[in-house]
Amino acid sequence: MKLNTPKGTRDFSPAEMVRRNYIFDTIKSVFKKYGYQCIETPAMENSETLMGKYGDEGDRLIFKILDSGDKLKNRMFGDLSIDEFRNLNLSQKQHVKLAELLEKQPDVDKVPLRDIFSNSDLEKEISEKALRYDLTVPFARYVVQHRNEITFPFKRYQVQPVWRADRPQKGRYREFYQCDIDVIGSNSLLNEVEMVQVTDEVFSKLNVPVTVKINNRKLLAAIAEVIGAPNAFVDITVALDKLDKIGEEKVCNELKERGISDASIEKLLPLMRFQGNTAEKLDFLKTYLGENETGQKGIAEVSEVLQTAQKLISDKTVLELDLTLARGLNYYTGAIFEVRSNIEGTLSSSISGGGRYDDLTGIFGMPDVSGVGISFGADRIYDVLEGANLFPEFTSDSMQVFFVNFGTEEAAYCLGLVKQLREAGINTELYPDSAKMKKQMTYAHNNTIRFVAMVGSDEMESGKIGVKNMTTGEQSSVTASELITLVNG
Amino acid sequence: MKLNTPKGTRDFSPAEMVRRNYIFDTIKSVFKKYGYQCIETPAMENSETLMGKYGDEGDRLIFKILDSGDKLKNRMFGDLSIDEFRNLNLSQKQHVKLAELLEKQPDVDKVPLRDIFSNSDLEKEISEKALRYDLTVPFARYVVQHRNEITFPFKRYQVQPVWRADRPQKGRYREFYQCDIDVIGSNSLLNEVEMVQVTDEVFSKLNVPVTVKINNRKLLAAIAEVIGAPNAFVDITVALDKLDKIGEEKVCNELKERGISDASIEKLLPLMRFQGNTAEKLDFLKTYLGENETGQKGIAEVSEVLQTAQKLISDKTVLELDLTLARGLNYYTGAIFEVRSNIEGTLSSSISGGGRYDDLTGIFGMPDVSGVGISFGADRIYDVLEGANLFPEFTSDSMQVFFVNFGTEEAAYCLGLVKQLREAGINTELYPDSAKMKKQMTYAHNNTIRFVAMVGSDEMESGKIGVKNMTTGEQSSVTASELITLVNG
Repeated sequence: MKLNTPKGTRDFSPAEMVRRNYIFDTIKSVFKKYGYQCIETPAMENSETLMGKYGDEGDRLIFKILDSGDKLKNRMFGDLSIDEFRNLNLSQKQHVKLAELLEKQPDVDKVPLRDIFSNSDLEKEISEKALRYDLTVPFARYVVQHRNEITFPFKRYQVQPVWRADRPQKGRYREFYQCDIDVIGSNSLLNEVEMVQVTDEVFSKLNVPVTVKINNRKLLAAIAEVIGAPNAFVDITVALDKLDKIGEEKVCNELKERGISDASIEKLLPLMRFQGNTAEKLDFLKTYLGENETGQKGIAEVSEVLQTAQKLISDKTVLELDLTLARGLNYYTGAIFEVRSNIEGTLSSSISGGGRYDDLTGIFGMPDVSGVGISFGADRIYDVLEGANLFPEFTSDSMQVFFVNFGTEEAAYCLGLVKQLREAGINTELYPDSAKMKKQMTYAHNNTIRFVAMVGSDEMESGKIGVKNMTTGEQSSVTASELITLVNG
Repeated sequence: MKLNTPKGTRDFSPAEMVRRNYIFDTIKSVFKKYGYQCIETPAMENSETLMGKYGDEGDRLIFKILDSGDKLKNRMFGDLSIDEFRNLNLSQKQHVKLAELLEKQPDVDKVPLRDIFSNSDLEKEISEKALRYDLTVPFARYVVQHRNEITFPFKRYQVQPVWRADRPQKGRYREFYQCDIDVIGSNSLLNEVEMVQVTDEVFSKLNVPVTVKINNRKLLAAIAEVIGAPNAFVDITVALDKLDKIGEEKVCNELKERGISDASIEKLLPLMRFQGNTAEKLDFLKTYLGENETGQKGIAEVSEVLQTAQKLISDKTVLELDLTLARGLNYYTGAIFEVRSNIEGTLSSSISGGGRYDDLTGIFGMPDVSGVGISFGADRIYDVLEGANLFPEFTSDSMQVFFVNFGTEEAAYCLGLVKQLREAGINTELYPDSAKMKKQMTYAHNNTIRFVAMVGSDEMESGKIGVKNMTTGEQSSVTASELITLVNG
């Protein structure tokens, strides 16, 4: 038997979990400080809740769940409860088929279900659940289902795993965590500002200098309008996004191929050629978009968000307008955010992103509720911190004091000391067996313990504890309360 | 479209999550303090890792996972990669069938897989993954798989959901959390003592007085031996367990029915009739079990655990020997634990339990590794705390200060104050819209906020903040730093 986890899934060792929990705890502490409230939804959703929400490719990547106690295809008609029979939703054709079968076979209970239904019908029945693919659609389902219990605006955070049947590759897993916040039921731009503040605070705490790129779908729509190609704004955005990589000429060719007129492309040239910082970009846009109403609204929105947020964030975070940012374009209706690490040599792809959507809950029959949200990718942040060696050596999860076990009598004596330290809130343990010193010290070393405490017969007599600082190698002889000060100090 | 979560699964609202996190945080903080290290395993395991480990009933309750991108039955032979073909592990018979088919159909790529394999073969292939059923079997798999990276004894904690396709009913869900600790690779009874200490500390912190019942499989085996029915110890244990409910006569009849001789039943009577506390029970057992070697070992083990633990636990926890405790008898080889709430009117069933097992990893080919563990049932603990009204009103997850939004100018001014409070570690938020006072106060009320802060034009001039304590109704006018003291005080 080969022992491993399913393809694309991982075990996390204690050393990895200390680091993962450091990321989760940091992110959650900021979420809470800003008033976001935790919710959780089940790992599984009804298939119909998820299917059709992520496009054809997404549907294909959803893991379906089989109820092994409920394999319809092996059951007889007589085993069905009335509820189950109703749930089958027989078609006219199936009713006819059933009637025919029942005529031939007088004992209705003995008709196997597979004689009545096709395999695909039965499969639909046996797999009506699926693992969640992201946290956004389950959140939308949550909001609509619990609309009468929720006080809007609703600020929620959710940190849970999601599952995707993607082809596994480096940095892409079939099970991974998302850390999401959303404010739903408020149009105020203060929410957009807050997304920037939360991002700034999370990455400041993690010591990762980042660039927060901001765009606004209204600006992209206005650009398409002023160059006279209002319906081609996706094409234009995609082309602008490639400008850095392929250059002006190729971008123009591509736009031409996509049916954009020469006149429109001509009008786009000044924008493509413009170089400048965020303030200069805004000035340029004011002239460039002129009287265009959507454009003016877009400029006003990004200006307000940029100006208000700039005053509130740390100087390690760079905030910039990026007109090429097109993340989730079909989905966002206002602000668009993306965050990248500014540490050279670390992951260049985005480590978090989000935006405003005006109709997330519409898919579940609750229209016109505007929301804005951002998602932090824990696995990618892990890679950045590891690549830049930014994980702290000890966290609140670390073991702080380890007592060597010198024998039955010494161990019994140590139990009281261990209790005292734990009562002072210090993570402490006593080796359970009086094993060889080398084995016990290896244990202490491998478990990244800060202080090793030794109590033999001499110490039992003197009431002292021999202590070795495992980082500095320093040794001392202290009382229990001195040890507490030493650890906490 | 009906909006709900799948049968037996639940959403958790912010109010519920605050309470659930209070339980999880308390349990985890104790686990960490005792040196247990966090690991996580994937939600899904290979089916062969789980199947056959929980008995037939368990197998039936395991949720299987379907890879929707990988439906073999709808694929052609030519779609298979070489790896997939190898993974199919064709039998001799299937090879012959394949050869025959290929003879008839010269284009090998166009042969549908369902023509080669039976439906059940294909189902095995398409569903080779399953959701974990508990944390113990995945932990055993983890230990064996990572044996070369682990320093033994290995003290791990794991807090993750598990899934069971059980018939949902009150208090029984298809998705629920388990909180497990295990020490693996040490025979020392100090580990059993630690299970009692951890239990005592968890429930002391949660303010739930509990009884920790202890038994030992060696005692049960010895009882069966001394009455001359060594192979009937499961029957005897089951009968003893019912003594309180059905009385001596019925228990004796039941033992008779199960083929226990009259002489053996006669010898069991003194034990059944014995009344006494733990110390008296131990004295009685010493005489009753006499020279029986297993019995002497059992008495020595429970005595040591009881005596050592008793000195270390709080006086709110009752520790007792219970000879009728038979939890997971096929599985445990030494100590057996079970914990019940002593609060009248709350859940009478066990809220945590565990024991020592001598060969957990044997199922995965790593024999003779002894372990001891205990599992805390978060959902049942939740019910006890709720029933006894023991949840604290505010936790570290609660929103502490809420600023009313009086308008654009006031909100802009408040952003700085909000920042100050957050920098002091206080969970603070500003209402994003300048909505009507009533709406904002409803929001504050529904979100259980401790202090409402009001800054209008007067306060902007005076530099003060109007504060209302939402618990006492008290109002005051304070500076930002006074507000910080007020909240933290």
